[in-house]
Amino acid sequence: MVRSMKTNKRQIIFHTAAALFRKKGYTATSMRDLAKAVGMEAASLYNHIQSKQEILAGLLLDAAQSFMQGMDEIEQKDISPIQKIEKLISLHIHIAVNNTDAISLLTQEWRHLEGEVFHSFNEKRKDYELRFKNILLEGIRCGEIKDVNPDVALFSILSTMRWFYAWYSKKDGLSIEELEEQFSSVLIAGLQK
Amino acid sequence: MVRSMKTNKRQIIFHTAAALFRKKGYTATSMRDLAKAVGMEAASLYNHIQSKQEILAGLLLDAAQSFMQGMDEIEQKDISPIQKIEKLISLHIHIAVNNTDAISLLTQEWRHLEGEVFHSFNEKRKDYELRFKNILLEGIRCGEIKDVNPDVALFSILSTMRWFYAWYSKKDGLSIEELEEQFSSVLIAGLQK
Repeated sequence: MVRSMKTNKRQIIFHTAAALFRKKGYTATSMRDLAKAVGMEAASLYNHIQSKQEILAGLLLDAAQSFMQGMDEIEQKDISPIQKIEKLISLHIHIAVNNTDAISLLTQEWRHLEGEVFHSFNEKRKDYELRFKNILLEGIRCGEIKDVNPDVALFSILSTMRWFYAWYSKKDGLSIEELEEQFSSVLIAGLQK
Repeated sequence: MVRSMKTNKRQIIFHTAAALFRKKGYTATSMRDLAKAVGMEAASLYNHIQSKQEILAGLLLDAAQSFMQGMDEIEQKDISPIQKIEKLISLHIHIAVNNTDAISLLTQEWRHLEGEVFHSFNEKRKDYELRFKNILLEGIRCGEIKDVNPDVALFSILSTMRWFYAWYSKKDGLSIEELEEQFSSVLIAGLQK
């Protein structure tokens, strides 16, 4: 019982920290700010977590894990490269909608990771991009995708998807299904009739 | 003669500041850093400029002006909406390639503008986006562009173009003409064969 209360408190701390880091930035957020937002004494906070860096690392590795797991599942599906890219666009949209604060950190605050965690995160990021690019290359090879520069195509999709959370936070009126359909349409099929 | 030397020095200060702001961020760059990078005493710097904020404002309004002027010219051309979007993509690429430091500030540091200048800059930004959206809407109306959500289309193009400078700084091997062709192809015609 004590343990589960502690776990729960830890979740609240991480959740609150994600919102604060997003709003003020990681560097500008103090442990005192966090304690206040959670409604605890700063000293008690240290019963649950060791450092601000531990929280950032936890949030980012968790979010990165969602993408790696999604990529694992999509790669294994018996569908065409274009269909895999549609699934990847949906993956980005779903994670961003369900976990907007953490995703904002993935786009904006990951440079504040330190040491081995930074290195490990950066490797995950590069690995994800490489696997995404390989799907594009496979599509070009099998003739489903035009003979475009795969780096240009990858960058266009990823920069749109990385900033989607910020755009989405200011918009309303489109359901998740409509967002998936619209972004897949614009990014894969293009604008031209 | 004295006047032209002063103007020239001012240009060097702005140019150097753009590179510093990009590298360290506006907030973290001190007037002392800037003086050192320019090779002047901090006190002499104030013979040429009044404040760090004056420099940021000058750099950003200058860069914004390039976009507004480009938009003016493109809107007036007797070409189709898709052709206008191609020209706008070229505009973004040219400005980013020729003025990478200032463009990075346009994407990353404009939130540090203060007071009236912030307001005026923000209005310019909104005006530019509205005019870009109107070209998309005109394309949809005349049947040249598919019936996509114009906000999704606008966001996809602009988030790709806003981060182009950072991607471009790490890439080489593509000429400006190839970049224009590839980004127009990916963003307008799409990936699907």
